[in-house]
Amino acid sequence: MPRNRQILLDNRPHGEASTTNFRLIAEDTPPLRDGQVLVRHHFLSLDPYMRGRMNEGKSYAQPQPLGQVMIGGTVGEVVESRHPKYQPGDKVQGMGGWQEYSVVDAGQPGALRKVDTTHVPISHYLGAVGMPGVTAWYGLVKIIDPKPGQTVVVSAASGAVGSAVGVLAKARGARAVGVAGGPAKCRYVTDELGFDACVDYKQHRDATSLAGALKEACPGGVDGYFENVGGLVLDAVMLRANAFARIAMCGMIAGYEGHPIPMQHPQLILTNRMRVEGFIVSEHLEVWPDALKELGELVGSGKLRPRETIARGLESAPEAFLGMLRGRNFGKQLVQLV
Amino acid sequence: MPRNRQILLDNRPHGEASTTNFRLIAEDTPPLRDGQVLVRHHFLSLDPYMRGRMNEGKSYAQPQPLGQVMIGGTVGEVVESRHPKYQPGDKVQGMGGWQEYSVVDAGQPGALRKVDTTHVPISHYLGAVGMPGVTAWYGLVKIIDPKPGQTVVVSAASGAVGSAVGVLAKARGARAVGVAGGPAKCRYVTDELGFDACVDYKQHRDATSLAGALKEACPGGVDGYFENVGGLVLDAVMLRANAFARIAMCGMIAGYEGHPIPMQHPQLILTNRMRVEGFIVSEHLEVWPDALKELGELVGSGKLRPRETIARGLESAPEAFLGMLRGRNFGKQLVQLV
Repeated sequence: MPRNRQILLDNRPHGEASTTNFRLIAEDTPPLRDGQVLVRHHFLSLDPYMRGRMNEGKSYAQPQPLGQVMIGGTVGEVVESRHPKYQPGDKVQGMGGWQEYSVVDAGQPGALRKVDTTHVPISHYLGAVGMPGVTAWYGLVKIIDPKPGQTVVVSAASGAVGSAVGVLAKARGARAVGVAGGPAKCRYVTDELGFDACVDYKQHRDATSLAGALKEACPGGVDGYFENVGGLVLDAVMLRANAFARIAMCGMIAGYEGHPIPMQHPQLILTNRMRVEGFIVSEHLEVWPDALKELGELVGSGKLRPRETIARGLESAPEAFLGMLRGRNFGKQLVQLV
Repeated sequence: MPRNRQILLDNRPHGEASTTNFRLIAEDTPPLRDGQVLVRHHFLSLDPYMRGRMNEGKSYAQPQPLGQVMIGGTVGEVVESRHPKYQPGDKVQGMGGWQEYSVVDAGQPGALRKVDTTHVPISHYLGAVGMPGVTAWYGLVKIIDPKPGQTVVVSAASGAVGSAVGVLAKARGARAVGVAGGPAKCRYVTDELGFDACVDYKQHRDATSLAGALKEACPGGVDGYFENVGGLVLDAVMLRANAFARIAMCGMIAGYEGHPIPMQHPQLILTNRMRVEGFIVSEHLEVWPDALKELGELVGSGKLRPRETIARGLESAPEAFLGMLRGRNFGKQLVQLV
């Protein structure tokens, strides 16, 4: 039985999360029962939604229980199997959590999925061709639904979700405008991902100033906004919204840290007849096949070139997670475990 | 040529609107050209949207031009006609504005509509069986779309729009809960309109306290909210929203007076996967026939018993309008001109 290091949620944050909220332990992996497989994780995905799970109280999902392994998406390799569909050596994607190994009831629907790593690196199944990519696809296609020539803005544009939003918008003939932090991320967004423009929010202290920059980047106004951050950027984009603009609410990083950030101008929803819609991609399993097909093709053809920031070793996960919440990553934040 | 008294927008408000923003003048009505009719107004409708038009700047409609007759819905009687479809004595509804007479190009689509006053008093064509009623119908049926057993909350519940929202919700098997100001309005909402409950917002100083009262009135949470006021009530209702709740944004009185009121918890749109949608009923002319049919039946059968507050004489319109913005009216605010 291999030794399995795990990171548990030890206590809940008051205000900002910190490394002291987590605890690293090690235990032997248990023997397999019939129908189970043992997966060795190659990569762990770190995502903003995890911050929401660390809080107690009413949210879209059960809070992460204290004293248990942190929830998280993983890709890896089957090392032992007592399920007829899986053989040692199979590459798989699942929700293994913040640990080096997981024991999975492989027959449970959605618990494990084989992935083909011939053309797509395995880590991308946690990003562009995984949950973040499908998140981008759902919000863009099902909520924003851009028409050719319309303008779509996305925040956290260099991230796993944002980069896919822009490339999917371009594929539909829309103008794609990113919002990102710093010149390097903005260059990646325009030069490597092919967005039409990118606004560096770090150059702006308030929503009015940011709205001014958006006005230049979006001369025809904003028809769709894919919201990954909340706060100042949301306010600024709303000031530039056209009539009948759609906002897909996907992430509110700015609000995860305990103190929700108000929306300054809700009356614009009325005056611009906007539609603002929140969603969680795991509630829309019906779109996954279509979405993964298009995303796989975009990655395969080089139109979508995902960036990754990779931390090494399970013990680095808490620091890497907190850094991602503060925007220190560039592209998809992963932890490499092998 | 009868003498026509008119109220113009003289200057725009800075902050709160006041009577000094308006000016009363009188002039002779001009001679009719072919295709025109002269209408003598019996009632002028006063509505919250007019406050929005008094502001300059980007809104859902052109601002009310300075020095011109204030926009407004009217019902009245044809007194002279050079259009073959209209005869003196016909009862009509139109957008005659804040004046005693109007000259209408009767052939222009939507400019004038004959109304049947056999079973429905003419003033109701400015309320329950007019624009406010259709507004209620669109937001409730097309945005909230309540299922039997779901809970629909409406603010300004004793008003022309709110009263219709509740009665339409009940007709669909939903639980209807009103928010209104003061015990008399709340009694009307529950006893005469048949809402299941009504919360008096004047008993509550903050959103948390109001949310507590809503929790009692809505033990199953809130599935739909018809927003007529904005501000505190919106925040409180959002705190009680169920997953997949819908908010129809119809009015934001709380935000019309110059200083927009932030939405305190926009992250709830995400965590509850809510849909928040603004609309203007004049952009959905396709629903008017269905809506007016159902509303006429509800009024005719006594299920919808609209209240009216009636000011007398054109000169009383500015005071009555400002009073309505402050919630001093009870039901539909009208000015009787004849």
